[in-house]
Amino acid sequence: MRILVANANTTEAITGRCADAARGAASPGVEIVPGTPRFGPAVISSVLENAVAAHGLLDLLAEHAGQVDAVLLAVSLDTALEAARQLMPCPVVGMTEAACLTACMLGNRFGLVTFGQTEGYRQLVAHHGLAGRCSGLLGVDFTPQCALADPEGALRVVAQGVARLVEGGADSVVLGGAALAGMEPELRGAAPVPLLDGIVCGIRMAEMLAGLKPPKPATGPAAPLRGRDSTGLSPALARLLRGE
Amino acid sequence: MRILVANANTTEAITGRCADAARGAASPGVEIVPGTPRFGPAVISSVLENAVAAHGLLDLLAEHAGQVDAVLLAVSLDTALEAARQLMPCPVVGMTEAACLTACMLGNRFGLVTFGQTEGYRQLVAHHGLAGRCSGLLGVDFTPQCALADPEGALRVVAQGVARLVEGGADSVVLGGAALAGMEPELRGAAPVPLLDGIVCGIRMAEMLAGLKPPKPATGPAAPLRGRDSTGLSPALARLLRGE
Amino acid sequence: MRILVANANTTEAITGRCADAARGAASPGVEIVPGTPRFGPAVISSVLENAVAAHGLLDLLAEHAGQVDAVLLAVSLDTALEAARQLMPCPVVGMTEAACLTACMLGNRFGLVTFGQTEGYRQLVAHHGLAGRCSGLLGVDFTPQCALADPEGALRVVAQGVARLVEGGADSVVLGGAALAGMEPELRGAAPVPLLDGIVCGIRMAEMLAGLKPPKPATGPAAPLRGRDSTGLSPALARLLRGE
Amino acid sequence: MRILVANANTTEAITGRCADAARGAASPGVEIVPGTPRFGPAVISSVLENAVAAHGLLDLLAEHAGQVDAVLLAVSLDTALEAARQLMPCPVVGMTEAACLTACMLGNRFGLVTFGQTEGYRQLVAHHGLAGRCSGLLGVDFTPQCALADPEGALRVVAQGVARLVEGGADSVVLGGAALAGMEPELRGAAPVPLLDGIVCGIRMAEMLAGLKPPKPATGPAAPLRGRDSTGLSPALARLLRGE
Amino acid sequence: MRILVANANTTEAITGRCADAARGAASPGVEIVPGTPRFGPAVISSVLENAVAAHGLLDLLAEHAGQVDAVLLAVSLDTALEAARQLMPCPVVGMTEAACLTACMLGNRFGLVTFGQTEGYRQLVAHHGLAGRCSGLLGVDFTPQCALADPEGALRVVAQGVARLVEGGADSVVLGGAALAGMEPELRGAAPVPLLDGIVCGIRMAEMLAGLKPPKPATGPAAPLRGRDSTGLSPALARLLRGE
Amino acid sequence: MRILVANANTTEAITGRCADAARGAASPGVEIVPGTPRFGPAVISSVLENAVAAHGLLDLLAEHAGQVDAVLLAVSLDTALEAARQLMPCPVVGMTEAACLTACMLGNRFGLVTFGQTEGYRQLVAHHGLAGRCSGLLGVDFTPQCALADPEGALRVVAQGVARLVEGGADSVVLGGAALAGMEPELRGAAPVPLLDGIVCGIRMAEMLAGLKPPKPATGPAAPLRGRDSTGLSPALARLLRGE
Repeated sequence: MRILVANANTTEAITGRCADAARGAASPGVEIVPGTPRFGPAVISSVLENAVAAHGLLDLLAEHAGQVDAVLLAVSLDTALEAARQLMPCPVVGMTEAACLTACMLGNRFGLVTFGQTEGYRQLVAHHGLAGRCSGLLGVDFTPQCALADPEGALRVVAQGVARLVEGGADSVVLGGAALAGMEPELRGAAPVPLLDGIVCGIRMAEMLAGLKPPKPATGPAAPLRGRDSTGLSPALARLLRGE
Repeated sequence: MRILVANANTTEAITGRCADAARGAASPGVEIVPGTPRFGPAVISSVLENAVAAHGLLDLLAEHAGQVDAVLLAVSLDTALEAARQLMPCPVVGMTEAACLTACMLGNRFGLVTFGQTEGYRQLVAHHGLAGRCSGLLGVDFTPQCALADPEGALRVVAQGVARLVEGGADSVVLGGAALAGMEPELRGAAPVPLLDGIVCGIRMAEMLAGLKPPKPATGPAAPLRGRDSTGLSPALARLLRGE
Repeated sequence: MRILVANANTTEAITGRCADAARGAASPGVEIVPGTPRFGPAVISSVLENAVAAHGLLDLLAEHAGQVDAVLLAVSLDTALEAARQLMPCPVVGMTEAACLTACMLGNRFGLVTFGQTEGYRQLVAHHGLAGRCSGLLGVDFTPQCALADPEGALRVVAQGVARLVEGGADSVVLGGAALAGMEPELRGAAPVPLLDGIVCGIRMAEMLAGLKPPKPATGPAAPLRGRDSTGLSPALARLLRGE
Repeated sequence: MRILVANANTTEAITGRCADAARGAASPGVEIVPGTPRFGPAVISSVLENAVAAHGLLDLLAEHAGQVDAVLLAVSLDTALEAARQLMPCPVVGMTEAACLTACMLGNRFGLVTFGQTEGYRQLVAHHGLAGRCSGLLGVDFTPQCALADPEGALRVVAQGVARLVEGGADSVVLGGAALAGMEPELRGAAPVPLLDGIVCGIRMAEMLAGLKPPKPATGPAAPLRGRDSTGLSPALARLLRGE
Repeated sequence: MRILVANANTTEAITGRCADAARGAASPGVEIVPGTPRFGPAVISSVLENAVAAHGLLDLLAEHAGQVDAVLLAVSLDTALEAARQLMPCPVVGMTEAACLTACMLGNRFGLVTFGQTEGYRQLVAHHGLAGRCSGLLGVDFTPQCALADPEGALRVVAQGVARLVEGGADSVVLGGAALAGMEPELRGAAPVPLLDGIVCGIRMAEMLAGLKPPKPATGPAAPLRGRDSTGLSPALARLLRGE
Repeated sequence: MRILVANANTTEAITGRCADAARGAASPGVEIVPGTPRFGPAVISSVLENAVAAHGLLDLLAEHAGQVDAVLLAVSLDTALEAARQLMPCPVVGMTEAACLTACMLGNRFGLVTFGQTEGYRQLVAHHGLAGRCSGLLGVDFTPQCALADPEGALRVVAQGVARLVEGGADSVVLGGAALAGMEPELRGAAPVPLLDGIVCGIRMAEMLAGLKPPKPATGPAAPLRGRDSTGLSPALARLLRGE
C-alpha cells in the first residue's frame, strides 16, 4: 500500500517532518510517498494563503493520481479536501478531519489546542459539521518558531492548554497544526485525556479507507469530472478535469 | 489483538452472523470474540427495548473488561455506547457510528437505508452530532424475516432505496441494521456511490483505535467510576462501578 | 388520582424524601405512590450509572402499569423517559423536563444550577430540544453530603449560583438534582427570578397530563410494543413487551 | 382563582367561544374572565394584523392587572406573549405555547394541523425554540367559515391531516387555531395519536402556573418597567409602564 | 427619491437627530421625510415597549403609504419590520438589520456594541437568522443620558468595547442603538475594524432597494392584505388592512 | 468610481456578458472594469473546479489591487470570497451573496432557482450562515446551452421553478448562476414575488460598500498579510502576500 503524504505549502522541510511522522505511524508494508507543491505559499495560516494553496496542492495530487492507494493531506486546515476527493481515484483524508473523527469515537466532546489563532479551526470544525462535538478551541501564545527554539516550553504551554480545555468539558484534545505534530508521546503521561495527532490519526484512517477500496461516486456533485476544459493548468490536472 | 463483538439482544444466531462478518473484515491476527447478553430483549427495534437492553449489554461487557483490546457494539442503535466507553478500559465503537464516520470521509453527505422505521436512526444520527452530514434516511418496506426468505428481493429494494437517497443528495449510503449487514459486496456493482457496512467499518475502526492505545480520561464526566455502590448487579459490573 | 413517584436509584431514603416533597406539592385527593427499583446503582451521577439504571426503573414501572394515573420520574437525569412513555399506559413526566418546560412559560431563557458537574444536564437539555432556551448551566462546588451537613452553606452557594446565572441572562433558574429539591421556599425571598423545583413542577405537570387522559399512540415508533420476546426479564416487564 | 381569557382580535363571538371552552376545561372553583380588546383587527391571520393587535391586547391586559391570577392568551399566534409577561404581575401563557409544551411531554415530536397557511406557526414554533421537537406543519384546505357551515367536512379534513402528520413522524398533533378549538373530543376516537387543544392545555397550564405563585423577575430584561413615559396610551397601560 | 425615516418612539428630538444623520448619509437628490408616531412609548428599551410601539409605528407608516419610495425604521430593535413590509407598497429596511447585513459583506463575523443590556439585540440577531455570523454582543456600562453629558467618555467606553469584541473574533462591529449613531467618524481612526452605523447603512440600503423597484408578493403570507376588518384604527391603517 | 467585475472562469464571453449586465445596473459615473483569469477552468460547476479557480481569480484581483474602488465576483459560487476580501484593499462582494442578502430585506425566506444541480448553492447558502432564511433550492432540468438555443423555453421552466418555490414558502427568489442573469426583467411580470439577479444586486451592493470606504481590519484573521513568502506566484500576488 502506498500513501501520498501531501503537504500544501511549499516548504520541503515540513513535508519531510510530516513524512517521517507518517512512517512512524504507518503499518508494516505501507510505503509513505512525500509530496510538496511546485508553487504556492510557504506557510498556510490565513484564509488567503489557504485559497491560493488549493491549486498547487491539487496540481501535486494530479501527478500521483493512479499511483497511490490513498492520500493524507498533511496540512492543518484540510486544504481543498472535497476538491481532492473529487479529483483523485483513491480515498483522501485530511489530518485535522482524521483527528476530529477519531476524537468522536473516544468521548462526547473534543477540544483543540494550537499555536496562535483559532479562527481557521473554528471554521474548519463547523465546515466538517462537527461543531456540536467540539467543547472549545484554545490558541496558546507560542509560535512554531519558538517551539523549535524552546521545545520544553512548548510542551509546557500545550499541556496547560490541554488542562484548560479539559476543565471546559473536553473528553479528548486534538493537537492542531503541524507544529504540534509528534508531541503526543511526550504529553501523554501528564494529560488527563487522550490527545489526538493529525498525522497519526490520518495515516491510520487512510489505511482503513484504502482497505475498503470504496468506489467513486458515479453521479452527483462529487462524481469525477468529464469533458471540462481549462487554460494554463498542468497536463496532469487538465487531463483529470477532462476525465481522461 | 482481541476484539469483542457484542450483540445487545439475546438472539445467539444474530451474534453468530455478526461475528462471522467481523472475522471476514478483520486484519490477519485479530481474534474476534463473540458475546451475547444473558438477559434482555430478543430484538431491539424500539426505544423501550433499547433502554432495557443497555443493562444486559453492559453486564456482558463487564465480563470481558481487561481481556479484550477493543469492543464493537454489534447493534444498529449503538446501544449504551457512551456508558460502554465509561465502563471499559479499552476503546468501544458502535457499528452505526463507525459507518457514519467512515461515510464522512468519503463525501459531504451520507444517506442511510434500512428495513422499516427510520425514527431510531434519525435520533441516533442527531445524537452523534452528525445531522448536518446526513442527506436523508429511508426505510424500505421489507422485514428482516422477508429478507431471509427472499434475499433477491431484499437486494432489489435496498438498491432502489440507495438510488433514491443518491437522488436526494447522498454521496454515500450507510446500510443500517444487522439485516443489511453483508449485502455490500452484492450491491456494490450496481450502486452509484459507496455503501457502508457497520460491521466492516466497525471492525476497522476498532482495530485503528486499539492501535492508538488511548488512555482513559482521568477526570471529568467520562472518567471511570470509583466507589459507587449498587444492588443486584453482577459481580463484574458491580466491581467496575466500585472502580476495582 | 394516584401518581407513582419513581426513584431510579436504589436508595430508599431518597425515594422517601422525593415522595414527601411530592405530597407537599400535590393537589388534595392525589395519592403519591413511592417506588424504588429492585436493583441498580445506589446513586446516578454518570452516563454509565444512568444507562444501567434504566432497566431497574422500567422493571419498577412495569409493576405499577395500570394501577397509577401518571408517573413522575424522580431522578434528575430523566432516566429512560421515552422508554417509560412507551412502556406505560399512563402519562410519564421527568422532574428536570417538567422544571425546564415550566421555566419556558415564565421567561425567555432559564439557567440551571446544581451541585458538581453540569455535563449530564447539558446533554439532557439538548436532548429535550431546549438548548436554545437555556442561558447557562452552573455547577456549584458542593456535594449532596456537604449539603446535609451544612444546609446554611448550601443555600448560600446555591443563591450565589443563581445570582451568577441571572447576570448571564437567565429569566428563571431550574434547581437541578434531588439534593436541591425543597430549597425553593428558603431561596425564594432573596432570588431575583423564579426558581423551579423538579418535584414540584413534575407533580403539577403529572396531574395536568393525567387530567387530559391522552390516548397512547396506536402506530409509529412510540406505540406500545406487541409480540416482542425477551430473556431474563421480570414477568411484568416481559408481559408489557409482549403487549399483553 | 380567576383566569383572564384574553382574545387578541376584536370579535366578541370568538371571545365567547374561547371562554366557553375554557370553562369546560377549568378545574372546579376557577372563574373564567373573558376579555376582548377595545381596538385592533377583527381577525389575526397575518404578521401585520398580529403586530397591530399587540397594542390592543396589552391595553386589555392592563385593565385586569392585579385582578386575575393568570392570563391565557386565546389567540393562535400567542400575540405579544413576552410583552404580556413583562406587563402583568401574574403568569401569562399562550394557547399554542401551552399545546406545544404539553405535546413535548407526550412524545418526541409533535405535528401541527391548521386551516390555511402554516407560515405563522412555523415562525412561532421556531420563536419558542421548539423547532427540533416539531415533525411538521400541515395546513388543510378549509376556512373557518367553511368549518362553521360544514362541521362534518371540517372534522374529516382535519382527521386526514392528522393521519398525514403521523405518517411523517408525529407522536402527537397540536390543533392550531381557534377554528379547531373544541374538535378534540370528536376526533379522539379515530386519531392514532393524542391531539392537543390550545384552550384546554392553556387553561391547565395557567392553573398550574398560578398555583406556583412565581415571583416576577426583579432585574434583567424581563423585569417590570419603572419610570417609562408614553403618549396617548390608556391610563392603565401608561401606569404600568411607569411602574406604578 | 423620498425616504421616510420613521422613529418608533414618540420623542421628536430623536426623530430629528435620526433625520439629520440620514440626510448626511443620503445620496444627492434624496429627500428625507422624518416621521414620529402619534402615540406610544417615549423610548423603546424593552420587549414590552417594543410590542406597544408597533401599532404607533404602523399607524405612522400608513399615513405615508404611496408617498415615499422607501422606509427606514429608525429604531434599534427594528420594530415591527415584517409587518411594515406587508403594510407598505415600497421597500422597508430596519437600521440594525441594515448594519448587520452590511457587516456580513465586510468580514466573516460581526460584533455589536451598545449602551446597557444586550438581550434585545441577541434576540433580534437570532430573529434575523444571523446568529451564526455574530461573534458577540457587548453592553457597555453607560447610558444615553451620560453620553450626552460626557461625549468623550462615551467614545472611550465604546472604543474599549470595540476592542474587546475584536479580541473575541469580530471582523467588524455594529454600533447598536440611536445613542451610538453618528459616532462612527470619530471612532474610525482608532478602531481596528470597520464600524457600522445603522442610519448610514440603512439609508444606503433603502436607496438600493428603492432603485430595484421590487414588486410586492402577490400571494403567500407576506402579500398585502385584502378585506380585513378592524375596530378603532386610524382611517389610513384601516384602509390598508382592507386593501383599498 | 471603478468596479472590477471579475469572472472566475477563463471564458471571455461570459466575462463580457457579465460586464454588460453590470453596466446596465450601475449608477451613472461608475466605470465597469471587466476581468478574466489568465488560467483555470473554462467553467465552474463543481467543487473541484471551484477550488482550482481560486488561484486564478486571486491572481487576477492582485493585478487590480489599488486601482479599483470595489470588486464584484461575477461567479455564481462566490469563489474565494473571504480570501479576496483579505487580499484586496477595497470592498469585495459575491454575486450570489449580494442577491441573498438583498432577498433578506424583501421578505422572510428566499428560494433559489438554477439550472441543474443545487448542491453547490446549498453549501454556499449554509457557508454564508443564511440557511435559516432559505426556504428551498430548485434545479430546473435545463442546461445553459439549451437556454441559449431556446430562450423562451428557458424562461418558461424558470418561471415554473419560481412558482414551485413560492408554493414552498419563498417570499422572493434568487436567480442562481450566470445563465439566469438578465432574465429578471422578462420574468418579472408573471412572477408572484420579487426575483433577485446576482449581477444587479452585486453592483448595487458594491457601490454601497465603496461609498462607505470601510477601513481594512488591522488585526485578526481577516487583516491583510505581511511578510509571507511564496513560490511560483505572480509578482502582484506575491507582493500582496508580503504586504508590500
